[in-house]
Amino acid sequence: MGGHGHPYSPAELELPGFVPQRLSQGQILAPFVGTAVFSVLGAWLISGRCGGGRLSKTDRLLLGWWVFTALAHIVFEPPFLFTPDFLSKENPNFFDEMFKEYSKGDSRYASRNTVVLALEVITVGFKGPASLLAVYAIASRKSYSHILQFAVSLSQLYGCLVYFITAYLDGFNFWVSPFYFWAYFIGSNSSWVIIPTLVATRSWKKISAAFQAEKVKTR
Amino acid sequence: MGGHGHPYSPAELELPGFVPQRLSQGQILAPFVGTAVFSVLGAWLISGRCGGGRLSKTDRLLLGWWVFTALAHIVFEPPFLFTPDFLSKENPNFFDEMFKEYSKGDSRYASRNTVVLALEVITVGFKGPASLLAVYAIASRKSYSHILQFAVSLSQLYGCLVYFITAYLDGFNFWVSPFYFWAYFIGSNSSWVIIPTLVATRSWKKISAAFQAEKVKTR
Repeated sequence: MGGHGHPYSPAELELPGFVPQRLSQGQILAPFVGTAVFSVLGAWLISGRCGGGRLSKTDRLLLGWWVFTALAHIVFEPPFLFTPDFLSKENPNFFDEMFKEYSKGDSRYASRNTVVLALEVITVGFKGPASLLAVYAIASRKSYSHILQFAVSLSQLYGCLVYFITAYLDGFNFWVSPFYFWAYFIGSNSSWVIIPTLVATRSWKKISAAFQAEKVKTR
Repeated sequence: MGGHGHPYSPAELELPGFVPQRLSQGQILAPFVGTAVFSVLGAWLISGRCGGGRLSKTDRLLLGWWVFTALAHIVFEPPFLFTPDFLSKENPNFFDEMFKEYSKGDSRYASRNTVVLALEVITVGFKGPASLLAVYAIASRKSYSHILQFAVSLSQLYGCLVYFITAYLDGFNFWVSPFYFWAYFIGSNSSWVIIPTLVATRSWKKISAAFQAEKVKTR
């Protein structure tokens, strides 16, 4: 722990009343990784049984992704938004501890940087519910399924862009060590760059193909 | 002009070397409004002559919007991004003066707030070229026309959301007076809220309808 009573970077960050983290990295990562595995496996098994073979393997995997990203946006992220004093609570819960741990990779969470807050407002308010709707849309093969998946994926990419560019412009010194930079700031966010890129690309192609088919038909 | 040698709010903002604005509000607004009128009129007339009647009236109006928003993102916004010293230049050009004027409605431009910079990076780097592509896509009736228009519109909406929410969280005191709040901060940005909402909604419906048609066909 630094001289300022907290482990975060930059050391001169003032975090009065900081209560040291009690849960270990493993205790924090396990529920999060467990949720990811459980979402993908659960969606795969349930869609295999109840989907009646209607859904493609890609759609069944995507179901898992949307269940997981919905849970991340609806269960894991709101506590940060609604607990301004998460660093100084005497009896921190799991989520308080989780954001203490993540702040080692980006102390803008600990300092409640307004960009991070603004992005979380949009994530919790729009991307969370929309991800849940994407699960329903894929499972029921709605005609808006692709445009909805594209919308949420593009929003996730836009959010990541703002998140990374502001970190760069604001000094790029928000991590405790290179390990936390690569593991948390880059690593944990990379899923929300790589997977949305793949999903948005796929939906873009499917949508273009639908209009191409319409064009050919009406020729 | 306030005691700190500049007209902006908050007054304690430090802007060393500030060179007072020479162009009047009218001299700054005229080229901008002229560009908007010229874009919409020009696109309407040219598409009427060369479109061979293939484009609907809505598409011809949309062409005008995309020409204008492309010019805004490609011509008007990059000078701000690439002129960090626009406030202190001895011989300011039109664009320097334009952003001095706009800063009366949001001094985060004058202070080069990193959120504003990050949003401008994305706007200039992605939305500008993509808006230009949208002009081409509509005119040539490309199959990706709707998903491209949706993508840029959603990005514009996301950018506005981040822009407004961070202004709120950062103190909501960046305008010289209520006039500049309503005319610049709200008024001039409202086009990039209202029109993208209409465009995104229209493209969403067209895309859903294309999949609905496909579904009916393959039944």
